[in-house]
Amino acid sequence: MLNDPTIDDIRAAAGRIGPYVHRTPVATCASIDAIAGASLFFKCENLQKVGAFKARGATNAVFSLSDEAAACGVCTHSSGNHAAALARAAGLRGIPAHIVMPSSALQVKKAAVAGYGALITECEPTLEARETTLAAVQEKTGATFIHPYDDPRVIAGQGTAALELLEQAPDLDVVMPPVGGGGLASGTTITVSALQPGIEIWGAEPAEADDAFRSLRDGRLYPSVKPATIADGLLTSLSDRTFRILSGGLTGILTVDEATIIRAMRLLWERAKILVEPSAAVPLAAILANPGRFDGKRVGLILSGGNTNLDKLPW
Amino acid sequence: MLNDPTIDDIRAAAGRIGPYVHRTPVATCASIDAIAGASLFFKCENLQKVGAFKARGATNAVFSLSDEAAACGVCTHSSGNHAAALARAAGLRGIPAHIVMPSSALQVKKAAVAGYGALITECEPTLEARETTLAAVQEKTGATFIHPYDDPRVIAGQGTAALELLEQAPDLDVVMPPVGGGGLASGTTITVSALQPGIEIWGAEPAEADDAFRSLRDGRLYPSVKPATIADGLLTSLSDRTFRILSGGLTGILTVDEATIIRAMRLLWERAKILVEPSAAVPLAAILANPGRFDGKRVGLILSGGNTNLDKLPW
Repeated sequence: MLNDPTIDDIRAAAGRIGPYVHRTPVATCASIDAIAGASLFFKCENLQKVGAFKARGATNAVFSLSDEAAACGVCTHSSGNHAAALARAAGLRGIPAHIVMPSSALQVKKAAVAGYGALITECEPTLEARETTLAAVQEKTGATFIHPYDDPRVIAGQGTAALELLEQAPDLDVVMPPVGGGGLASGTTITVSALQPGIEIWGAEPAEADDAFRSLRDGRLYPSVKPATIADGLLTSLSDRTFRILSGGLTGILTVDEATIIRAMRLLWERAKILVEPSAAVPLAAILANPGRFDGKRVGLILSGGNTNLDKLPW
Repeated sequence: MLNDPTIDDIRAAAGRIGPYVHRTPVATCASIDAIAGASLFFKCENLQKVGAFKARGATNAVFSLSDEAAACGVCTHSSGNHAAALARAAGLRGIPAHIVMPSSALQVKKAAVAGYGALITECEPTLEARETTLAAVQEKTGATFIHPYDDPRVIAGQGTAALELLEQAPDLDVVMPPVGGGGLASGTTITVSALQPGIEIWGAEPAEADDAFRSLRDGRLYPSVKPATIADGLLTSLSDRTFRILSGGLTGILTVDEATIIRAMRLLWERAKILVEPSAAVPLAAILANPGRFDGKRVGLILSGGNTNLDKLPW
C-alpha cells in the first residue's frame, strides 16, 4: 500500500500534470459577497478539463506509472467525472483505459467516456457486479486500477487545486472543499496544512449524505448508507485513507440541507454566471447556512465541477 | 452632436473606466473548437459588472461628464442591461440616475435597477410614451440623456472590450461581435480597424432581426420592424451613427436562425460552462451556421452578456 501523499508529492503532481490540465481561474462576485457577508474566492474547477477537478488526480495517476505498468493500461469503475478524467489522461499518454460502468448509467455519460477513447465494460448496477467485473478486466488486461479517491496519486493530484488557490487568492482565512469520498478534501487538507497552517479548513457536506460528518465526530468510519442528495458527486463513503487524512487536518465539517444547496447553485449561476453542478455549490451553501460564522472572512471555496443535466435543473 | 469616437477616445475610455469594470477573461474550449473547426477565443463579458458589456459604455459616459453636468444626474429609457449599467455607474459617481421603464417590464429588472439606487419612472409600453416621459424627466431634472448606443461616449466604452481582446488573444484572424443597435459592434470596429486592420470584423445578427444585415447590404438604414428572436438584446435598430461606423469598417454581417442560436447557447453552457444570454450566443451560432468559412482561423467572439431567466430556458 502506497504511503499517504505529502506536500512534496503534491508539488511534484503540479509539475507532472501542468501541461495537461488548466490552471483554473479564481472568480469573485460582489453581489454574492454582500449576501454572504464575507469575501469569497471561487476556484473554478468547473472550468477544468472534463469539467471537474477529477482531471487533476486521474492525470497525475496516469503519468506517475512506470512505462512498463502503463503499457497494460489503467482501469476503474465509475459512471462519473473520474471515468472521463481517467479516459482522457490515458489517451494523452497513449495507453488503454478500461472503464466498468453500470448498465444503468446515462447514455450521455457513456458517450463522454467513449469519446475520450476508453473501452467500456458494462455490468449490473450492483456493488458486487462492479467489483467482479473490474477484477475480470484487471485479470485479463493487467491494467492498473486507479480508484476514484482511495489512491495517494489521485489525492496528490487533487491537492494541486488548493496549491493554485493559495497563490491566486492570498491571505485567506478559510478554505472550503466539498466532501464526498474525500479525495479533494484530503488533497486540500495536506496542501493547506503544510503551506499555511493558520488557515481553517472546513469540509462541506450534504446533510442527506453526512457520513463524513458523523465519522469525524465519532472518530470511526461510517459508510454512506442510502444517501439522497441532489449533490450526486458526494454520495460515496470515505476510505480508511481519506478518513485518516481528514481526521488529522480538517477543522471540521459543515452539513447543509438540500434547499440551501439549490439556492447556492442558483446564486452561482444567476449572480456570478458560474455554471456549477450541485455538488460544487455545497461549500457556498455551507456559508449561507451559517450566517455570522464567516463574517468578514476571506474564504476560498473549491467549485468542484460543472457537469449538469441542462434538461433537468432543480428549480 | 458629438463626433464619432476614435481609437484615442477608446484608449481614454479604457483608462477612465478601468477602476470600475472588470478586465474580463478570455476563455477557450477544446470541444467547441473541434465542432467549429476553428480556434475560438471567447471574451467573457457575461462576467462583466452587471453581467454585460453595457457596464463599459455607461461607465465611460457617466465619468466623461463635467462636474456641472454630472450634478444634475443622468437619464435613459431602457428595460435591460443598459439601465442597470447606467444606474450602477451613476451610483459610483454619486449622482442621480433617472430610468424610464415601461410598466410592462419584468419585476426582476425593475428590482435590479432600483437595487443600484436609480429612480424609476414608469410609462406606458409605447415608443411615444417612452419619449414624452423621458423628455419630462429631463425637463424637470436637467439630467443628461445617455442613449443605450447612439452616443459616442457609450460607443467608446464598448470598444474597450475589443481593446482587451486583442491583447489577450494575439494573432486573431477574425473578430465577431453580435449586432443589435450597433454600439458594441461600432466600438469593436473602430478598435480593430485602427489597431489591426488585417483582421476581418464580422457582425452576427439573428435572421429574425436582420435590419443591420439588410441596411448594410442596401446601403440605407432600415428600422427593425417586429423582430421576433430569442436574442432579446438584439431587437433594436441601428442609428445613423452606428450605421455610418459599421458601413465604413465592418467586413460583413452573418445572420443565423433561432435553432442555431439556441444550439450555440447550449454548447457554451454545456461544454464550456459559460453561462451566456441568447444574444451572446449569436456569434458562435454564426460560426456553426457557416461550416468551412472559418476553418482553421483564430476567431475572437464577444460574449455580450449573461443575464438570463433561469426559470425559462429555451431547451
